Amino acid sequence: MQELIIGIDIGGSKILSGILNREGRILARKKETTLANCEAGEVLDGINVTVKELMQELGAQRNNILGVAVGAPGPLDYFNGIIKDPPNLGWRELPLREELSKRLGMQLLLDNDANMAALGELRFGRSKACTHLIYMTVSTGIGGGIIIDGKIYRGKDGGAGELGRMRLLAEDGQGASKHGQNLESLASGTALAHEAQELIKQGRGQGILALCPEASKITAREIGEAARGGDPEARQMLRRAGYFLGMAIANLVNIFNPEWIVLGGGAGLGLQDFLGEPIRDVVNDWVAPSLKHNLKIEFTSLGEEIGLLGCAAAVLQEFENSARRSNKEGMEAQ
Amino acid sequence: MQELIIGIDIGGSKILSGILNREGRILARKKETTLANCEAGEVLDGINVTVKELMQELGAQRNNILGVAVGAPGPLDYFNGIIKDPPNLGWRELPLREELSKRLGMQLLLDNDANMAALGELRFGRSKACTHLIYMTVSTGIGGGIIIDGKIYRGKDGGAGELGRMRLLAEDGQGASKHGQNLESLASGTALAHEAQELIKQGRGQGILALCPEASKITAREIGEAARGGDPEARQMLRRAGYFLGMAIANLVNIFNPEWIVLGGGAGLGLQDFLGEPIRDVVNDWVAPSLKHNLKIEFTSLGEEIGLLGCAAAVLQEFENSARRSNKEGMEAQ
Repeated sequence: MQELIIGIDIGGSKILSGILNREGRILARKKETTLANCEAGEVLDGINVTVKELMQELGAQRNNILGVAVGAPGPLDYFNGIIKDPPNLGWRELPLREELSKRLGMQLLLDNDANMAALGELRFGRSKACTHLIYMTVSTGIGGGIIIDGKIYRGKDGGAGELGRMRLLAEDGQGASKHGQNLESLASGTALAHEAQELIKQGRGQGILALCPEASKITAREIGEAARGGDPEARQMLRRAGYFLGMAIANLVNIFNPEWIVLGGGAGLGLQDFLGEPIRDVVNDWVAPSLKHNLKIEFTSLGEEIGLLGCAAAVLQEFENSARRSNKEGMEAQ
Repeated sequence: MQELIIGIDIGGSKILSGILNREGRILARKKETTLANCEAGEVLDGINVTVKELMQELGAQRNNILGVAVGAPGPLDYFNGIIKDPPNLGWRELPLREELSKRLGMQLLLDNDANMAALGELRFGRSKACTHLIYMTVSTGIGGGIIIDGKIYRGKDGGAGELGRMRLLAEDGQGASKHGQNLESLASGTALAHEAQELIKQGRGQGILALCPEASKITAREIGEAARGGDPEARQMLRRAGYFLGMAIANLVNIFNPEWIVLGGGAGLGLQDFLGEPIRDVVNDWVAPSLKHNLKIEFTSLGEEIGLLGCAAAVLQEFENSARRSNKEGMEAQ
């Protein structure tokens, strides 16, 4: 049997588990959506059961598994394998790597979901073989993975890439509230949903409300649907979100001079027909001419499976690195 | 005679030339302030004359010179040694490395002035031995040098670190004009001077005007003086500039997770008694808790000579790298 990789992508609203081969083909997968109000231990038990089921489905044994990787929302402590306090999960200081590894009976790699996705894009996406890439996920929250010279950039102690925290509006009388100023609170799926709910409270946003009569259940999806139906309020909201995403991306390009900017995430991919244009317009206006040359800004072609593909990429990279290390040691020992 | 290094720091309003030893002691230096309205060829001729004078002053010969380095305002093409179109110099596509090298009769290293300063800080400043540092210069313009793993981060084609271009205010009806939104236009020395001139046009800013009756000649220096004298308008302007610098720095910390943020530049150093507090306040409010741990934000202790020290650091780094390279080749050849 070929060598297999287990990937687990823990998101704000779903867990996607899968078994992949070395070429990034997903041979078995399961998507679970219920996460809210679950205790961490129960969630990890659930993942363990799912992984065993998927292995059984393929007739795979422990010795067929090349490695296991898990992507989870940041902030997390990469070096120690600990989930810190992701706003959308309700977990705090959870030693996920150790806890899940114990349940599975296998070692595992744990990284920020956006870092995993960036690795997936780099190995399996259209940006293959590029060296400087920034991946931005627009989903429940907004996160980022920064690739420099083909490797994840982690910063001094593993906390780099918190792109959703980028502040884009000031507080000096510009009319923005204290809590409404960073990228995540301006352009994430959650931000869009809140904005629609605010509109509705004011008696507006009726085109959106018609698609989801219970205002508290409105998500970015309904806003996209309304916009596609021609609703001017929904279109204006998406143009504004695209504008802020473009502003953040222009800043990143001016700072990093990357080759690729890749966008993903449920809300990002679902709304790309509305977000792409304002993003490109703003970047075009605000990036230094020499940095625009050859810059590519695209939505990932890997869809919602980018996280799983990233898990495979992380395992393969680790495997190649350790092969290189032992090769080198072997040569030095001769 | 000990080995000497020639450093030339070309700024928006002055050129500082010096000869240093390997320990970063400046043995001879000359500061020239007149640059406006000069053709590039004349400026380079002038630098050549100054360098020859400084060498003569020390009785130094060509064979005493370990290397020459030049810092110049960005954007510049590091790989080809070409100055692109720095807004404050009026030069365009100037092959400075080649042109000055011809005049001096010596090879030289050319880099962005902020990159040079970052290298100077890393070797000779308080942040010695740190691996992740961002240097921000607040002067006529605002520039940056990013150090990752002890080396300048250049991006895909050498244009990284344009920190002054970071957009901090949006255009969506927040009241900011199209040209008043990036960090440089909000918090540089030039921005402060413009702001004071605007106040005066409105009949306000009298405390600043009293220190420099010709409004068009007001610089950041007079604003600092007025603030020190208790002028509330000047203080408010500096608090606002500090706020925006803090906002940009918070963004950089959330993205890069660095160990040190070092501030320099004429305006930055001259106004540090007013800028330091708002910067630290904003960073404290907006940086993820895990990234604040051990983060140091300071003004450089190297003063206006940081650029010259950076030139020495660049030459020494290049020298050490080539020694390492030839050592390695020697070992491989054995």
